[in-house]
Amino acid sequence: MIDGAATSWVEVSSECDFPIQNLPYGIFDANDKRLRVGVAIGDSVLDLAAIHDAGLFSNTMLADENVFASSSLNGFMSKGREAWTQARQRISELLSSDNPTLRDNSALRSQALKPMSQVNLLMPVAIGDFTDFYSSKEHATNVGTMFRGKDNALMPNWLHLPVGYHGRASTVFASGVDIRRPKGQTKADEAAAPSFGASRLLDFELEMGFFLGTGNQPGEPIEINQTKDHIFGMVLLNDWSARDIQKWEYVPLGPFLGKSFATSISPWVVTMDALEPFRVASPKQDPTPLPYLGLDGAGAFDIQLQAFIQSEKMTEPMRLTATNYKYLYWNMFQQLAHHTVNGTGMRTGDLCGSGTISGPTEDSRGSMLEICWKGTKPITLPDGSERKFFADGDTVIINGWCEGEGYRVGFGDVRAKILPA
Amino acid sequence: MIDGAATSWVEVSSECDFPIQNLPYGIFDANDKRLRVGVAIGDSVLDLAAIHDAGLFSNTMLADENVFASSSLNGFMSKGREAWTQARQRISELLSSDNPTLRDNSALRSQALKPMSQVNLLMPVAIGDFTDFYSSKEHATNVGTMFRGKDNALMPNWLHLPVGYHGRASTVFASGVDIRRPKGQTKADEAAAPSFGASRLLDFELEMGFFLGTGNQPGEPIEINQTKDHIFGMVLLNDWSARDIQKWEYVPLGPFLGKSFATSISPWVVTMDALEPFRVASPKQDPTPLPYLGLDGAGAFDIQLQAFIQSEKMTEPMRLTATNYKYLYWNMFQQLAHHTVNGTGMRTGDLCGSGTISGPTEDSRGSMLEICWKGTKPITLPDGSERKFFADGDTVIINGWCEGEGYRVGFGDVRAKILPA
Repeated sequence: MIDGAATSWVEVSSECDFPIQNLPYGIFDANDKRLRVGVAIGDSVLDLAAIHDAGLFSNTMLADENVFASSSLNGFMSKGREAWTQARQRISELLSSDNPTLRDNSALRSQALKPMSQVNLLMPVAIGDFTDFYSSKEHATNVGTMFRGKDNALMPNWLHLPVGYHGRASTVFASGVDIRRPKGQTKADEAAAPSFGASRLLDFELEMGFFLGTGNQPGEPIEINQTKDHIFGMVLLNDWSARDIQKWEYVPLGPFLGKSFATSISPWVVTMDALEPFRVASPKQDPTPLPYLGLDGAGAFDIQLQAFIQSEKMTEPMRLTATNYKYLYWNMFQQLAHHTVNGTGMRTGDLCGSGTISGPTEDSRGSMLEICWKGTKPITLPDGSERKFFADGDTVIINGWCEGEGYRVGFGDVRAKILPA
Repeated sequence: MIDGAATSWVEVSSECDFPIQNLPYGIFDANDKRLRVGVAIGDSVLDLAAIHDAGLFSNTMLADENVFASSSLNGFMSKGREAWTQARQRISELLSSDNPTLRDNSALRSQALKPMSQVNLLMPVAIGDFTDFYSSKEHATNVGTMFRGKDNALMPNWLHLPVGYHGRASTVFASGVDIRRPKGQTKADEAAAPSFGASRLLDFELEMGFFLGTGNQPGEPIEINQTKDHIFGMVLLNDWSARDIQKWEYVPLGPFLGKSFATSISPWVVTMDALEPFRVASPKQDPTPLPYLGLDGAGAFDIQLQAFIQSEKMTEPMRLTATNYKYLYWNMFQQLAHHTVNGTGMRTGDLCGSGTISGPTEDSRGSMLEICWKGTKPITLPDGSERKFFADGDTVIINGWCEGEGYRVGFGDVRAKILPA
């Protein structure tokens, strides 16, 4: 673990998401179409492919092959937990205030350390399968109350297992990729037949996701207390949702085109090692889950999360909600143990979303559906316009961070603008 | 199109699935761990990597790069329809009775033509996303009748759109890979709480699937009459299902662990060019679908399908059902147009399953759930044992073919044995 008091020779403000305690991984190019792995430090990106070329990983398990000269993190992720720990340790040494190796090598430093504002951050991972869970009790209760009434809000299975479903991997985009409003079939309650057109109820879902670093053989479940060795890191995730398309299509096989057009993620993958100091207990589970879902120790993380809207007329974003990852009823270790308990083989790069993270209060709800309570409580923006769902030209931004003493371990933003259909 | 009367210098019986009219593609190795693309002809496999190395694709679009020296068909598929047509034309020439090029070159022939019994057939395609539809009206009606009664059998959306959902790509296996019975949570109707254990209601679903050869840009739907240019070919598909796990978990987000443990496909991908002579009209659709689902011309294919069971005590398989792909209410062109109408970007190698294909009669139902009508009509096997669902040790086999005049265009088998949990 990197000491909370550690500092880097790269200047990092106390409000910055990327101090030496973080060291998240991403994929970037410097406008040269050459994709490689970078690590964020302050307002800069350290080019790990260049660091490897310079021989600075020579005493690690990663010495032989430059896994950082790659268009995805998958090669590095597939090396396993010990390699991840060694890489983090080595990068931390190289960036540490008192280590001269890189600090005093101006030629290598200027080659390998790029201002973040001058690089393109791209999809960090080649995703195999994308699964989305539904693990916030507050979210499931809110949505259930809206559609089935307070007494039937949670389905009978909800308190017994982390409900989830498969999403679409081909339409997961990195922050900054604009999202086109989807068209599709919808049917108004009073209409005799469905009609075709642009979705009118475009929504976000504030989520987080975790990436599998290493998978499992088909037929061999990952036991819950082994799950942590398979999880590489986390991202912020916006599960874009077209509520009108979803409503008409989803019975009986679940959401499909109402979700499949786009999912946005943050470009930086924050490792479980960086998040470890912020591990906290999950909400108490009652009834006690079946033994295969029983985790030893705390399963949640104290990650503050916010979402914002900025219309084309607004000069700065307005906050829509503030919530926390720790509110989730089902934690990621339970999600992964459940996912594989039937023998499902998972692979390096698989992504699992948390489901919308809503908190216990009205100002901590994680979707417009909940914030505006099914359109009955519109919000007014600083530009004077009203929203129940999103309009074309709106930019939606999610950020998130863990608060240390005098530093933050953050995720950067995931932001995307809505283009007309 | 290859003439129905065409013949090959490779001997092919009239009952064989692989005459010169077929020429399906697969991936194989000859016990040498060297994976490459092959084409089935009679009881043999033609090694296309070797044919390419010998310069025999030199006058085609595939001349420059040996896309057949690969562990998947994806490279070849990504080249597009014109390349597929050129390859088929060239392979057909080389295998034609009157063409001496390969026929009379005994050195190349012995190198490139392998007995099918002496090679390993492997997963043909690196699948990006796997989608499963639910497009048989008879199946949806049977299942709906069992669970909701005859009057509410079809959901209100069913006749208006091809209902579908995302499945799991990492657990699609080629024929011959054994399937381990899944464990999971189930809850008996009369039980107060769920319990954990091996699934007791393990079922198959007789389906077919199509592979995307070329995809589309996100935000740019594939117009229905363009869909045929994107579809490379078809396989048989067994969508293994654990009914007890599925029943407890699937509300409200659809099937997850009840399906995700395994899907089996046939190793040979039969191209749309080979299937073209067997194109027939789909069932009449009432109400008329919205214009984006309106296909010009016939959308179904006359493909006879059968499923068999063989317990460990049986010396030969017993037929469970005989149905036909042409019974599907929603055709594959409608499925693909619907899938992308919201702007979903699809990719080379994406797989779309048809959903269980049940016919209009009792002996044409495509799952044990339907054949044994929710366990109320067990079947007796030749070994004297009874089945409502599958037992450990059972092998399930699906085959399928189009019947030409004096020849068949077939898919081979997809078979898998059930291992104990």
